[in-house]
Amino acid sequence: MGTRFTGIAASDGVAIAPAFVLSTSAQAVEERRGVPIGPEIERLEVALRAAKGELESLRETADVKLGAEHAQIFTAHIQILEDPEFAGAIRGMIEGEEVNAEFALNQVAKQLIALFEQMDNEYMRQRAADIKDVSQRLLAKLQGSSQSSLADIQEPVVLVANDLAPSDTIQLDASLVRAFVTDIGGRTSHSAIMARSLGIPAVVGLGEITANVQAGQLIAVDGAAGLVVVDPDPEEQASFSSRAAGEAEAKARLLALKDEPSQTLDGRRVELAGNIGTPADVAAVLANGGEGVGLFRSEFLYMNRQDAPSEEEQFAAYREVAERMGGKPVIVRTLDVGGDKEIPYLDLPKEANPFLGYRAIRVCLDRTELFNTQLRAILRASHYGKLRIMFPMISTVTEIRQAKARVEAVKAELRAAGTPFDENIEIGIMIEIPAAAVAADLLAKEVDFFSIGTNDLVQYTMACDRMNERISHLYQPLHPSVLRLIKMVIDGAHRHGKWVGMCGELAGELSAVPVLLGLGLDEFSMSAGSILKVRERIRGLRMDEAQTLAAEVLQLDSQEDVLKKVQTWA
Amino acid sequence: MGTRFTGIAASDGVAIAPAFVLSTSAQAVEERRGVPIGPEIERLEVALRAAKGELESLRETADVKLGAEHAQIFTAHIQILEDPEFAGAIRGMIEGEEVNAEFALNQVAKQLIALFEQMDNEYMRQRAADIKDVSQRLLAKLQGSSQSSLADIQEPVVLVANDLAPSDTIQLDASLVRAFVTDIGGRTSHSAIMARSLGIPAVVGLGEITANVQAGQLIAVDGAAGLVVVDPDPEEQASFSSRAAGEAEAKARLLALKDEPSQTLDGRRVELAGNIGTPADVAAVLANGGEGVGLFRSEFLYMNRQDAPSEEEQFAAYREVAERMGGKPVIVRTLDVGGDKEIPYLDLPKEANPFLGYRAIRVCLDRTELFNTQLRAILRASHYGKLRIMFPMISTVTEIRQAKARVEAVKAELRAAGTPFDENIEIGIMIEIPAAAVAADLLAKEVDFFSIGTNDLVQYTMACDRMNERISHLYQPLHPSVLRLIKMVIDGAHRHGKWVGMCGELAGELSAVPVLLGLGLDEFSMSAGSILKVRERIRGLRMDEAQTLAAEVLQLDSQEDVLKKVQTWA
Repeated sequence: MGTRFTGIAASDGVAIAPAFVLSTSAQAVEERRGVPIGPEIERLEVALRAAKGELESLRETADVKLGAEHAQIFTAHIQILEDPEFAGAIRGMIEGEEVNAEFALNQVAKQLIALFEQMDNEYMRQRAADIKDVSQRLLAKLQGSSQSSLADIQEPVVLVANDLAPSDTIQLDASLVRAFVTDIGGRTSHSAIMARSLGIPAVVGLGEITANVQAGQLIAVDGAAGLVVVDPDPEEQASFSSRAAGEAEAKARLLALKDEPSQTLDGRRVELAGNIGTPADVAAVLANGGEGVGLFRSEFLYMNRQDAPSEEEQFAAYREVAERMGGKPVIVRTLDVGGDKEIPYLDLPKEANPFLGYRAIRVCLDRTELFNTQLRAILRASHYGKLRIMFPMISTVTEIRQAKARVEAVKAELRAAGTPFDENIEIGIMIEIPAAAVAADLLAKEVDFFSIGTNDLVQYTMACDRMNERISHLYQPLHPSVLRLIKMVIDGAHRHGKWVGMCGELAGELSAVPVLLGLGLDEFSMSAGSILKVRERIRGLRMDEAQTLAAEVLQLDSQEDVLKKVQTWA
Repeated sequence: MGTRFTGIAASDGVAIAPAFVLSTSAQAVEERRGVPIGPEIERLEVALRAAKGELESLRETADVKLGAEHAQIFTAHIQILEDPEFAGAIRGMIEGEEVNAEFALNQVAKQLIALFEQMDNEYMRQRAADIKDVSQRLLAKLQGSSQSSLADIQEPVVLVANDLAPSDTIQLDASLVRAFVTDIGGRTSHSAIMARSLGIPAVVGLGEITANVQAGQLIAVDGAAGLVVVDPDPEEQASFSSRAAGEAEAKARLLALKDEPSQTLDGRRVELAGNIGTPADVAAVLANGGEGVGLFRSEFLYMNRQDAPSEEEQFAAYREVAERMGGKPVIVRTLDVGGDKEIPYLDLPKEANPFLGYRAIRVCLDRTELFNTQLRAILRASHYGKLRIMFPMISTVTEIRQAKARVEAVKAELRAAGTPFDENIEIGIMIEIPAAAVAADLLAKEVDFFSIGTNDLVQYTMACDRMNERISHLYQPLHPSVLRLIKMVIDGAHRHGKWVGMCGELAGELSAVPVLLGLGLDEFSMSAGSILKVRERIRGLRMDEAQTLAAEVLQLDSQEDVLKKVQTWA
């Protein structure tokens, strides 16, 4: 039997391949005093130029492969190289103390990292990681050290590393890196998030895996179990290989559906879209055959910063998404802040029950500048693709009319200025408050579409905070009342010829798909990784049978009964 | 023009009458040393017996007039008189220091009051007020002072006092005391609460009103405006007299309806009931012609204490209400704790969103002992009148079944022990969570009745914390969705032959009455003071017209439109 290591399950999937051990340990840095200043400065300049060249080429690759959002990190790294506080300080130390460049670099980096790590702000702490990353790159250049580099990977491997820096993960080639395992990190660390978004199995926080693996040793990984087996025996090899093959086959089968229609056996066609947080997420939506973006959570543009994003920044992000989706529809949800999403610079009040409080559209209708800036950015970007605007947390007709009046006012400004935008941009609302669901037939007259946000809708319908573990048994997305509200929303919209999507987690739940289809849902928006599974499910269903199922579950007593029914249903 | 004083509006209504100034200022207490101990102790004993005799007679009157709950305060005062920490300490000080009884009393009282006032617990702080009250009574007896006493009031007056002690307010004869005004106090002080419950106009917190009024001076009071006019001029007198007469007339007109049926012009009969917190509140319900108690908030038995009330204590309270209602139905709501109602000894967790948290039935189903004790007490009391059991915060069928199973288990215990109880006691649930409203037709099969709790239902339906001022415009009891949910509840219940009440604030809103009637509501439960006004309204309505109105408002867009409609409706 191989040697087993258990770590933190960071990304699902099974893989087996020889180890590629990424050595990031540069040689120890010596302190040498009294070195001649001129040549030492020259060494530094050469290393700076080399590092910058490398970063520029990485940025270009990232931009093409993953989009401008992901490429930004390299821009940030280049800026650090050019920052007088960094390169300037190193030069100053070499000149003032006649020390070698490596030592000066180390001293300056240490001070800056300590400074940023102390800061209260998550965004600033993130800068510490960037400085570490850049410093290591620069040190490698100075030492001319022949690091094993990701570029050296030529055949399928399991990547073994102490940790993966952002500039490492961005270079990962998912066709060659079958899995990665690291000494440090947690489920929400950068490398774990990256693994899930790339669909690479990963186990992190293994402690000393780098010390226990030799390059070329066979390694088996079970990402879901957080398990790593070094030198698996023949039986283990067979088992991991067959599981990996099964996964690959399933993946291939799903990928074959990438450009197929989302259509039932009897011809009912729906739209399967992806939820995104940043422009970078578009890649995964397209790779998984998404027919649009059903929810662009614009609040991510506002988070981890010191102040609100400018109109230009927002415009660039919305435009990038619109363009990369190439004419497929993209629903931009206007700022959904409050509740559990804090944005310090907005200075929102502390509340006794934030989920029942001052949130989303309730804030935006009060903060004219904030809202107008976002609306201008979205409208301007609408010229470059097919954008739609969606307002969150609507509970009254009045709010819709006020929000639409803002859109009209901004449109008039743009028209007057001759700025192009989509005059026919569709406007919709989230249905996530019971009042909106029950009055859906009234609200439908005011908008072009609805998107049901099941996460909040379930929370309010059940009077159950979804974060509260003590009552988690009452958070019931398949409670008959939730399903009935969904039906009221769909029926109310269809009566007025409007379409209805869903962007809550329920939309990607395979067991719920037949019921939602049967209730008449027109669009399902979910995390990219679920799209093909849902498409496969829909292509195996008949609409008439789904309708019968839906009618049946609406009359069941409890979520338990609904679950039993949908799980045993053919 | 008379002299105007403005204070805190404590209880609505207009009155004009001569002043009766309640002097509570006993003579100053002298310190006399070296008094003969024997006679001084004897003076104390005489005063103690006299004070006790007075308190016993007050207790008897209160018991007959207002019920055991209100009489309790005098029991507490008698206990203080008999407490060795109080009377014993006074005796000890007379003997040890050879001081006069008045001085010893003052010293002991001061220490005890200071001790209790420091305590963190509201219940214990309340004891300080009781000790002050008892001490004043005892001091008056010792001094043989001829205080002006409430018993001296023989004709209509406006009572003027520094403050009213609990033992004062309990003696108020509302037919003679037309209003009261005090120097100190706030809107939630004891005297203000008492004024509202007795229906006596009152202004409190006037500062120095006692210093500015002579006995017999004419005083006009506008309780709603917090206005007191001393020596009003003839024009002011005429205006206040005519307003007071108008109020008296309206009151008399309403009182004539006390025993009339709550029935529309075309014969639809509903039930008008009162909401109560303690057995003492029964008096007001009966005085206002209540046909039952639609909501007995049992949590008041659990509040302001150090530990949970025993089965016997609860039994006594439920039995008293059952008996005093004389066969009229009483709905006891089981413990509704959590949310904004804290009971420290239950040690509930702090939550991010308490209104969406661990509350009411969610707690009771977990805390077997707590729930069983209450159910035993209610069932035992059901033998003495017509009690009903109601569970709050129900969101699933499962919860109802679990709660009913508890009731059955307790019934079996009682049966086995030969303890009598009402075998056919009706069991109902609050409908205050959207999930329960939408699934009302399913839940109706499990219970005997529903009572709609609009306060919470509105809060969850609108996703709006009713305590949050920043979004108070979204707390909309007449939002079309709320009205539609109410209709779903009523229709769902009637389909299964069950009746539906309402015990939220909406039930007592005159403008909402025609709509609720038209939707088919069977029972309206409200604060006692609203019952007769609602009865008058109902007796002027036609059911068919109310039904037409209800159907119309369900199709309106917004609460604004509903308000416009009901306010202009004939």
